[in-house]
Amino acid sequence: MPDFSALFSKNATNMKASTIRELLKLTQKPDIISFAGGLPAPDVFPVEDLRTAANIVFDTQATKALQYGTTEGDDGLREELVKFEMKQGVTLKKENLLVVSASQQALDIVAKLFLDPGDYVIAGRPTYLGALQAIQSYSARVLGIPFTDAQDGFDMDALERKYAEALAAGKKVKYIYVIPDFQNPAGFCWSLAKRKALLDFAYKTGLPIVEDSPYREIRFIGESIPSIYEIDQRGAARANVINLKTFSKILAPGTRMGWIMGDAALVAKCVVAKQAMDLCTNVFTQMWLAEYMRTGKLDSVIESTRAKYRLKRNLMVESLGKYMPKRADIRWTEPEGGLFLWITLPAFIDTDKLLLAAIEKKVAFVAGSGFYIDEPEHNAMRMNFSYSSHDQIEEGVRRLALVVEEAIAAHDKA
Amino acid sequence: MPDFSALFSKNATNMKASTIRELLKLTQKPDIISFAGGLPAPDVFPVEDLRTAANIVFDTQATKALQYGTTEGDDGLREELVKFEMKQGVTLKKENLLVVSASQQALDIVAKLFLDPGDYVIAGRPTYLGALQAIQSYSARVLGIPFTDAQDGFDMDALERKYAEALAAGKKVKYIYVIPDFQNPAGFCWSLAKRKALLDFAYKTGLPIVEDSPYREIRFIGESIPSIYEIDQRGAARANVINLKTFSKILAPGTRMGWIMGDAALVAKCVVAKQAMDLCTNVFTQMWLAEYMRTGKLDSVIESTRAKYRLKRNLMVESLGKYMPKRADIRWTEPEGGLFLWITLPAFIDTDKLLLAAIEKKVAFVAGSGFYIDEPEHNAMRMNFSYSSHDQIEEGVRRLALVVEEAIAAHDKA
Repeated sequence: MPDFSALFSKNATNMKASTIRELLKLTQKPDIISFAGGLPAPDVFPVEDLRTAANIVFDTQATKALQYGTTEGDDGLREELVKFEMKQGVTLKKENLLVVSASQQALDIVAKLFLDPGDYVIAGRPTYLGALQAIQSYSARVLGIPFTDAQDGFDMDALERKYAEALAAGKKVKYIYVIPDFQNPAGFCWSLAKRKALLDFAYKTGLPIVEDSPYREIRFIGESIPSIYEIDQRGAARANVINLKTFSKILAPGTRMGWIMGDAALVAKCVVAKQAMDLCTNVFTQMWLAEYMRTGKLDSVIESTRAKYRLKRNLMVESLGKYMPKRADIRWTEPEGGLFLWITLPAFIDTDKLLLAAIEKKVAFVAGSGFYIDEPEHNAMRMNFSYSSHDQIEEGVRRLALVVEEAIAAHDKA
Repeated sequence: MPDFSALFSKNATNMKASTIRELLKLTQKPDIISFAGGLPAPDVFPVEDLRTAANIVFDTQATKALQYGTTEGDDGLREELVKFEMKQGVTLKKENLLVVSASQQALDIVAKLFLDPGDYVIAGRPTYLGALQAIQSYSARVLGIPFTDAQDGFDMDALERKYAEALAAGKKVKYIYVIPDFQNPAGFCWSLAKRKALLDFAYKTGLPIVEDSPYREIRFIGESIPSIYEIDQRGAARANVINLKTFSKILAPGTRMGWIMGDAALVAKCVVAKQAMDLCTNVFTQMWLAEYMRTGKLDSVIESTRAKYRLKRNLMVESLGKYMPKRADIRWTEPEGGLFLWITLPAFIDTDKLLLAAIEKKVAFVAGSGFYIDEPEHNAMRMNFSYSSHDQIEEGVRRLALVVEEAIAAHDKA
């Protein structure tokens, strides 16, 4: 390549290839038990029903499905999504909903709408890597807020303090990014009180909340808590919340299909941004998923996903209890939903290094450091329990525990 | 919506809803003959072969197709695309090729990689609206270069002069955007000499050329001219060219599938940008199109598309000759490929206004002004000939000619 380095944008200079995604390649060797990815269990994909739905599109609407569509999204799919959300208690009309090429595009759209270089986004410590990448790709930064020990949401005092400090330092804060339901990477679920408190903070400061809810439907223990989007609707209805949803965890990520919900005027701005990004989302897939949703079978897929993940999560928690060294400074979250749990290790263990030892022992995870932009924690790891088989979960945790034991022994000896 | 206006990014403030796309809604009434869209003829879609290919994916690789994929794109599709390009004389390896969610995403990726606010892109006057939208969405601007009267490419003297002026004025020029094959909107095709001259200009200035080639395969008259990408490869091979391709015009736009070709190091940077945009392109559709390409039938679809568009283009050119007022200041391009021709009207006619009169007469086009960021020309129109039937083309041109006649009569009377 000629030397284009003087020509690249500041944004391009800020973009980083995700080291996680690079490491994922290492972990994909067939003999490695990998808890590193964020992949749904393939046995939940309703292949035959999806095939039937696709063939109905070929039978009845092929020409429309193969042609350009509108940026807003296929009307049929938007109608099905409105029904799907209404059943869950969300009130919305078609103009509150934009179909997107899965959640990552929603994260890109929101970042593009709000972020100038040097701006800040309030987000949890830790938080979803893909959101961090989108934020960094606009040369913006994160104001990281710790979670409470109770794991029920942000430490609200820290939020108030950090926000005040940021304003005092002349920082421009543009929005709040949260994943209240079984967040990636730690699996935390926000309490109702904390959701309300965050919404009040948004009202007070005038900030939008970007509520990312890819796992919301994948609750396998306990009762669902209203989303912040719903709490706003049922209460002050000031429309400060933009809610991001996706088919990736409730149906199949290969469809790259998600939706944004929000105030109609804000959704209209998202449409303009998306127009310059990809004109419209895959039309065939939109009509295909609309056809699939009309069968009414999505609910039972979600139910079966929940049941499968509940068993796997329980097995992982049990295996950790059985194999991991018993120490007060080794602990893990016990999530009520989602795909991940989060292990915290003794402060002297650096999981970036531990990962290499783990790969030698044929087990993999994601080192926690990837889920922070600034001042990463180095003694944590994200564990995915949705993808591996039961046997793999038990054997993988056993291997991992050995790696941790060895790291502790090496430290004690030194 | 709460008042978020102080929170929006500068980019968001620069984004404009395309007035063209708004007007397209007006032209979609069933009794209007519309030459406004850029839609392929639906009767070229090989529905049954595409259905067969989709069912093969369901039969043999459903689980993989419904799961996450890599950002680079499905290996199978990339292999087929490499073969497709090699057959046309392009030399490339898989690492020179990134699968994207159609050309608009490629335009977004390139703009994001290179453009800071206030930067400039060299582009034709007129040029493709979607490229302009992508450029504007990064708060960048266009250095507009006129085409020669011979319609064989840029006026190279104007290019040299405008570039020197821009540098002298302290403007940062980041890349050159061109559509050498049957450009949108005018249908111009660049001569070999002009392609070489532009490449030499790129070598001399160190600028990348973004060569957008959505219509390259849709040549229905004359011999194919090597792409600028190929000319570079066969000659100095300095890899200054990024070539954008898409299935939208050669197969079906509803699949939202395209590819970027370029130097491997640059493609790797595009991958990082895309990761933050949508993680990966629709996996099912990638595998589906790979399966379709394996049938070897794409070539015959392209051949039949060419044959159909040749007839339609000829009919539109003939109808214009038959119905349009005979004046030296009314002329149109006679493209050798693509989907569009470009009509220039007397300078006193403003096609933005003429469009409203045309819609009353039940015919529509796109006013030329939309294809310029700065100082638009107001007396031109873009005409699409791929979508309408033969009867519609003749009748629509007849109606349009009446509208033009009336506008001339009104002007002469005034």
